[in-house]
Amino acid sequence: MSGNTFGKVLRVTTWGESHGPALGAVIDGCPPRLPLSPADIDAALARRRPGTSIHTTARREPDRVEILSGVFEGRTTGTPISLIIYNRDVKSEAYEPLKEIFRPGHGDMTYQAKYGIRDYRGGGRASARETAARVAAGAVAQKILDTVGIQVLAFTLELGGVRAQNFVWEQLNDNPFFCPDPEAAAAMAARVQAVKQQGDSVGGIVEIRVQGCPAGLGEPVFDKLDAVLAQAVMSIGAVKGVEIGAGFAAATLTGSQHNDPLTPKGFASNNAGGILAGISNGAEIIVRAAVKPIPSIARPQQTVDVHGQPQTISIGGRHDISAIPRIVPVAAAMVKLTIADFLLRQKAVT
Amino acid sequence: MSGNTFGKVLRVTTWGESHGPALGAVIDGCPPRLPLSPADIDAALARRRPGTSIHTTARREPDRVEILSGVFEGRTTGTPISLIIYNRDVKSEAYEPLKEIFRPGHGDMTYQAKYGIRDYRGGGRASARETAARVAAGAVAQKILDTVGIQVLAFTLELGGVRAQNFVWEQLNDNPFFCPDPEAAAAMAARVQAVKQQGDSVGGIVEIRVQGCPAGLGEPVFDKLDAVLAQAVMSIGAVKGVEIGAGFAAATLTGSQHNDPLTPKGFASNNAGGILAGISNGAEIIVRAAVKPIPSIARPQQTVDVHGQPQTISIGGRHDISAIPRIVPVAAAMVKLTIADFLLRQKAVT
Amino acid sequence: MSGNTFGKVLRVTTWGESHGPALGAVIDGCPPRLPLSPADIDAALARRRPGTSIHTTARREPDRVEILSGVFEGRTTGTPISLIIYNRDVKSEAYEPLKEIFRPGHGDMTYQAKYGIRDYRGGGRASARETAARVAAGAVAQKILDTVGIQVLAFTLELGGVRAQNFVWEQLNDNPFFCPDPEAAAAMAARVQAVKQQGDSVGGIVEIRVQGCPAGLGEPVFDKLDAVLAQAVMSIGAVKGVEIGAGFAAATLTGSQHNDPLTPKGFASNNAGGILAGISNGAEIIVRAAVKPIPSIARPQQTVDVHGQPQTISIGGRHDISAIPRIVPVAAAMVKLTIADFLLRQKAVT
Amino acid sequence: MSGNTFGKVLRVTTWGESHGPALGAVIDGCPPRLPLSPADIDAALARRRPGTSIHTTARREPDRVEILSGVFEGRTTGTPISLIIYNRDVKSEAYEPLKEIFRPGHGDMTYQAKYGIRDYRGGGRASARETAARVAAGAVAQKILDTVGIQVLAFTLELGGVRAQNFVWEQLNDNPFFCPDPEAAAAMAARVQAVKQQGDSVGGIVEIRVQGCPAGLGEPVFDKLDAVLAQAVMSIGAVKGVEIGAGFAAATLTGSQHNDPLTPKGFASNNAGGILAGISNGAEIIVRAAVKPIPSIARPQQTVDVHGQPQTISIGGRHDISAIPRIVPVAAAMVKLTIADFLLRQKAVT
Repeated sequence: MSGNTFGKVLRVTTWGESHGPALGAVIDGCPPRLPLSPADIDAALARRRPGTSIHTTARREPDRVEILSGVFEGRTTGTPISLIIYNRDVKSEAYEPLKEIFRPGHGDMTYQAKYGIRDYRGGGRASARETAARVAAGAVAQKILDTVGIQVLAFTLELGGVRAQNFVWEQLNDNPFFCPDPEAAAAMAARVQAVKQQGDSVGGIVEIRVQGCPAGLGEPVFDKLDAVLAQAVMSIGAVKGVEIGAGFAAATLTGSQHNDPLTPKGFASNNAGGILAGISNGAEIIVRAAVKPIPSIARPQQTVDVHGQPQTISIGGRHDISAIPRIVPVAAAMVKLTIADFLLRQKAVT
Repeated sequence: MSGNTFGKVLRVTTWGESHGPALGAVIDGCPPRLPLSPADIDAALARRRPGTSIHTTARREPDRVEILSGVFEGRTTGTPISLIIYNRDVKSEAYEPLKEIFRPGHGDMTYQAKYGIRDYRGGGRASARETAARVAAGAVAQKILDTVGIQVLAFTLELGGVRAQNFVWEQLNDNPFFCPDPEAAAAMAARVQAVKQQGDSVGGIVEIRVQGCPAGLGEPVFDKLDAVLAQAVMSIGAVKGVEIGAGFAAATLTGSQHNDPLTPKGFASNNAGGILAGISNGAEIIVRAAVKPIPSIARPQQTVDVHGQPQTISIGGRHDISAIPRIVPVAAAMVKLTIADFLLRQKAVT
Repeated sequence: MSGNTFGKVLRVTTWGESHGPALGAVIDGCPPRLPLSPADIDAALARRRPGTSIHTTARREPDRVEILSGVFEGRTTGTPISLIIYNRDVKSEAYEPLKEIFRPGHGDMTYQAKYGIRDYRGGGRASARETAARVAAGAVAQKILDTVGIQVLAFTLELGGVRAQNFVWEQLNDNPFFCPDPEAAAAMAARVQAVKQQGDSVGGIVEIRVQGCPAGLGEPVFDKLDAVLAQAVMSIGAVKGVEIGAGFAAATLTGSQHNDPLTPKGFASNNAGGILAGISNGAEIIVRAAVKPIPSIARPQQTVDVHGQPQTISIGGRHDISAIPRIVPVAAAMVKLTIADFLLRQKAVT
Repeated sequence: MSGNTFGKVLRVTTWGESHGPALGAVIDGCPPRLPLSPADIDAALARRRPGTSIHTTARREPDRVEILSGVFEGRTTGTPISLIIYNRDVKSEAYEPLKEIFRPGHGDMTYQAKYGIRDYRGGGRASARETAARVAAGAVAQKILDTVGIQVLAFTLELGGVRAQNFVWEQLNDNPFFCPDPEAAAAMAARVQAVKQQGDSVGGIVEIRVQGCPAGLGEPVFDKLDAVLAQAVMSIGAVKGVEIGAGFAAATLTGSQHNDPLTPKGFASNNAGGILAGISNGAEIIVRAAVKPIPSIARPQQTVDVHGQPQTISIGGRHDISAIPRIVPVAAAMVKLTIADFLLRQKAVT
């Protein structure tokens, strides 16, 4: 049983390969009568587009969405919303040499093991390209969140070992990393340049915050809000860890340190990250994702081909040095889809 | 839409409150003709039972399961397997004072916000008691894993800041923490005693390893193996973070450091934790969970009552100092349920 | 992937075999704060119990339900409601001769083909006994319907060729057939006696009506209200046909005859049976189910054993002559579960 | 929670409105390595296209599918298969007068009640146009059925009261009704002409047969094969009744008449329609669907507008006289999707 659908009431199904004619999403369960236009979605897609400062040779993706169904005279109708984004600027021949080799850190070997066939062009379905559909769907989810005033904020907390310290929120969008600390952003840029020259890549940490979320969202015991957020964020290609609130740091705290005191004005601290017993508590929801370094690197690597023979591979071409800048809007989108789904799920029983 | 069912082909639905007459699980989708007896399940439940060394006043839970359906003459029939565990040794009157107060770090406030009603006795549905049903279901999942020789190993990696260093696997079950490092286990015991005297509690880190898992399990793009493992483990009450393989450490590595080279004999390292592009790669699967300290502590804490008035609370009674020892078998159970489900999902399409 | 769960927001999972220790249902997704007691459910179960007039040797099933979870101080809590009904008066040894033979018209052969194993005692999971759990769950669904004033009425329209003509609703419960036509009920009783003496059995038609259902329920395009009602009712053991409104008669009408004119006061007729384009239209919902004759008959029948050898079988013992009287409350329960689920589904998006 | 997805392992999500830019289907869960080309699907779509003999003014739908994903070098890859069919020859202005009026027998009133908004052009999502996506998906399902040699045959059994009697299977495709009785087909054509001149429409009965289906498919107790077939077929717009095997006729038979004797060579009769206890028994599966007359008729009808004011409506334009010819391939598609899904579901547990 495949797994290309996310959500229970707000259900998003994505489809498409990196070098196929198009990719897209079908969103079923969106409430009717919400305003929705292609421009709403294109704005979100633009944030996912590679910048120029750190991605000089990167693939151009001036993505534009078409809404094929579910919207009538500018409003959602309650029927499925089909979104399509055509793939352009596709150079499949560059991938011909990869037909018979498994790139380290990529899904080449596992797709072959699972399906016995794979579209090797640009990573096929396993490409980060797939996340464009998630971002498009996330823009629809935001329309649902708008009805109750929920905002989702995502940013780069750490990249290549450089961690943001002083948050200047107004400058969040002034650098290609969506990093709220301008000094850290400059250091990140330097780190990326250095690593690039070494033919290598870097990872980092993305943080996502949800503001204005009412208490009561989340469905014990398996669909706890934190549990599904973990699935949502871990389902993004390069993510290797997810934590909520204090997260892994909670492992070294005592109960008296970690518990958030309740006061008549709300919680006095937020180690819980806005979630207690799997249900939102009204405080800011805080999620962090650990992102591994991009596996495609210029440095030679040891690997095997489809026949099991040892090979050395050096991956050139237009690859990012870090997945972080693109993952920031993708992570925001996955959190939006999750929160919107739980908002609708909660309506069903109250 | 509620969330008390886990899995897609192997579907487990749990039910029950801490102080209700019983709790249980219904397992739908278990293949027929597998051997299954109550003793198989009771053995798993025994591992979850509180030990004596660190839980001197803890509730007695000599749990015994009854199999009410789905098994005939010692073998599964393919019909739903209903498991029931009666609650015994329940002292609900002790919880009467908690009727009108929200304990910090607990779900009291969020259950009230979500449902407008709550069974306050022993935490109701939010009690760790609920996990007994998961452990019972996990024992059934193990029967499925047995058919292909998959083993799941869970242990305490860290507790109260004490981390296991030297792994002596034969001694894993010789201490109440399921810690494979005997020296670390002794230090953990000392740490627990010290914290207990301070009326406080501690958290830690649990690690789960899956051995013998074939390559090819996991369902891109949303039900990636790591994504669903993250949900499975994060759905356990006290867990605040989940990581796979190198996990959060991957954020500071470069691609050449993090990528696992492929060789004709397999992967030369395992930073991926056995999963690439959301699909198992045949290597050992490695999951780690960050566990927060037990929120019920004797030290006085600031809180509010159901009327929003400030209160001070000091929680006595028979509470654990750390959730870790109980979470070890629970985490193993959730991983077993996840792997078994993906094993069956993969069968559907090959 | 098994199929023991019904519903999307109101999810009912049933379990249990005819001669196992018990059977039951877990209901997930019931809204909180609804009044619910065992007596509510026992009343529904009593309607399903065999009467005495036509079932002189029938198995005694003085069923009593226990609510094991999800209810606190007489109200639902929003957590799973676990219901259990113990099997009593079970004489499994009577089924020993059936261990190696396939009864015509029963699931013996198909369960063996599907699972490679079967609990042959009393039909195992395929027994009509399983429907007790449905009726119990239906009583919970009625609590949800009560919140908006929806009533479900089920009755015998036809039995053994005798069709009700003049409906005297007040006398619906005055005969063992739940037939609103007293004269027809008498004829049905005579027909049953005659058939019984011939060692044979009869089928019939059950009609279910839903009153007070608001317009707007049903989810195009696959979960249309009529489509899911068809699944719900066809999933009852002996049902071989389902129709809505004019049903099969619509095949011979013209458009001008079949269309229901709309007037400012509502629809002028109800050939649609209360459903248009898969969505309730506010008129009475009308469903009819064709029920086959009970396959267990005293007359000798040709069959084969598990080794494929020809055999003759004559089934004695305490069997009903018609499934109809028991199916009436079961059909009502399935319709209640369906309507309640769609009521909650509709809340999620409005 | 919306309902635009059908199937559990083979999951089909359809989208699109009659007068939107396109409609389509996403098929998730199709096994990898099956041959699939647009031509396979176009052939199925061609059968659904209106003929000329009875639909002289009907909308032209020379549908051609594009496969946007999930197929690589002519074979399925195991990833989602996205199919798109562009809407051409759309004349939306003809529907402008229907903006404020509810057509009798159509979903205009119920869509408005449900969503508070509707795309009134050509019936929007409620249009029979939607079934093109089902037929396309059914052609993919056939590829799965091909792997085990299952054939699905659908035909018109009755139209406007004319019933097929003598089946000449070779001539099934020689008339626009897909009627295997040439004489009946001629009478049906005459009946259609007569009704058309009266400005009216007719319904009928479609029969679907599944040949070569192995025993063991179907998932008790709610997803019985007959139950899900009933949902599948009843989810087609104009269908008002579904029956299996003897169907409604079973209501008047005795057990000794209805039971199918088992012999060493198989079943001696097939009143069960190939399904026992919800599981296929290896015999031919027989499903029948009652189809109501097309609600759009030229004769004046009484109705109301969106303001509840009485109106008279006479629907001109290019409408079919009977839905039957188009429903034959649609019903076949729904049955194919159902059987293919159960085939994969069965693989998961054996």
